[in-house]
Amino acid sequence: MPSAYSSQLLDNAVGQFARLPGIGRKTALRLVLHILRQDPAEVRMFTDAISTLRSDIRYCRCCHNLSDTDLCEICANPRRDARTLCVVESVRDVMAIEATHQYNGVYHVLGGVISPMDGIGPDDLNIDSLESRISAGNADEVILALSTTLEGDTTNYYIYRRLAPYNVKITTIARGVAVGDELEYADEVTLGRSIMNRVPFNGTNT
Amino acid sequence: MPSAYSSQLLDNAVGQFARLPGIGRKTALRLVLHILRQDPAEVRMFTDAISTLRSDIRYCRCCHNLSDTDLCEICANPRRDARTLCVVESVRDVMAIEATHQYNGVYHVLGGVISPMDGIGPDDLNIDSLESRISAGNADEVILALSTTLEGDTTNYYIYRRLAPYNVKITTIARGVAVGDELEYADEVTLGRSIMNRVPFNGTNT
Repeated sequence: MPSAYSSQLLDNAVGQFARLPGIGRKTALRLVLHILRQDPAEVRMFTDAISTLRSDIRYCRCCHNLSDTDLCEICANPRRDARTLCVVESVRDVMAIEATHQYNGVYHVLGGVISPMDGIGPDDLNIDSLESRISAGNADEVILALSTTLEGDTTNYYIYRRLAPYNVKITTIARGVAVGDELEYADEVTLGRSIMNRVPFNGTNT
Repeated sequence: MPSAYSSQLLDNAVGQFARLPGIGRKTALRLVLHILRQDPAEVRMFTDAISTLRSDIRYCRCCHNLSDTDLCEICANPRRDARTLCVVESVRDVMAIEATHQYNGVYHVLGGVISPMDGIGPDDLNIDSLESRISAGNADEVILALSTTLEGDTTNYYIYRRLAPYNVKITTIARGVAVGDELEYADEVTLGRSIMNRVPFNGTNT
């Protein structure tokens, strides 16, 4: 097949970039031409960062978060409250919660939610290891922070049942009208939850 | 500095992606997490395509187009009309013209336009080699296809003066109202050129 450009090397590199999600061939070409204008040393830094990432990154043996080491920075940090465990779907959720700087506990990354439609059952998720952490008496509270979809709710309930035999408090994150949002534009379910789960007002915590 | 994520490897890869034009840190993270879900073999194909491109690609010794070989596919193709030369600013312009499938001549990539503001003079561009091709009597026509900016016009005029001693026809691409565009929305300069450079109508070529 003749190449779309005058060079197979170019065509190949564009094709590889275009396989990334959200990157079309035009964007891919722009990125590749940018790379061609860079120093070989800079390009090597780029490719090295990617190869090293793929080959050297690990999943924390305790919480399954992405980590450079056997035990991730969060689990290994003695200043974190290791007895509060937040259960999330993915490493992106860990990043999102960390970015709030409001949480000082540790995590447990499930790696997804139970979804029979996609063929994902409890055994495909890190639920056994969650139960092990709890059964070993390593936590006082498990915070469920999964998405409020059918799959998320199913998973929440499944985990709730699995952890029921153990003496651990199970909570779920608060749902409600987002800070700064107007009430009239909030959906009914969210607004309903906001009212149901109202909290004492101390003069400032609106 | 502590990493923005729980992993320096991740942070490093995200940083490298985010240095590409038009890629912010959020997009970079999305791409990196996608790469983490891929097979190591696929990731190697990606990084190899980029390193090989950067190390092995050349510029055609004749037209300065990107090429895998010493002489690019277009210059080396005996079915192309080597005596018609289209002068363009960049390799992207070659791709744009090739995509029309309307041009069967060859190219000459200047690598930019004369721009005193940016410190780019004639010596920074592939103009000497253009003159060599013409002085050697290798072309009958030179088509100027630079952008209609002050810099493009300056460069056109400079090339026109440089090639004046040689017996070569110099043309410039037609400017006019784009196919499918409404006259009332065309700018005056473009519409004026469309009228000035009108062509005989044969019943179909609207």
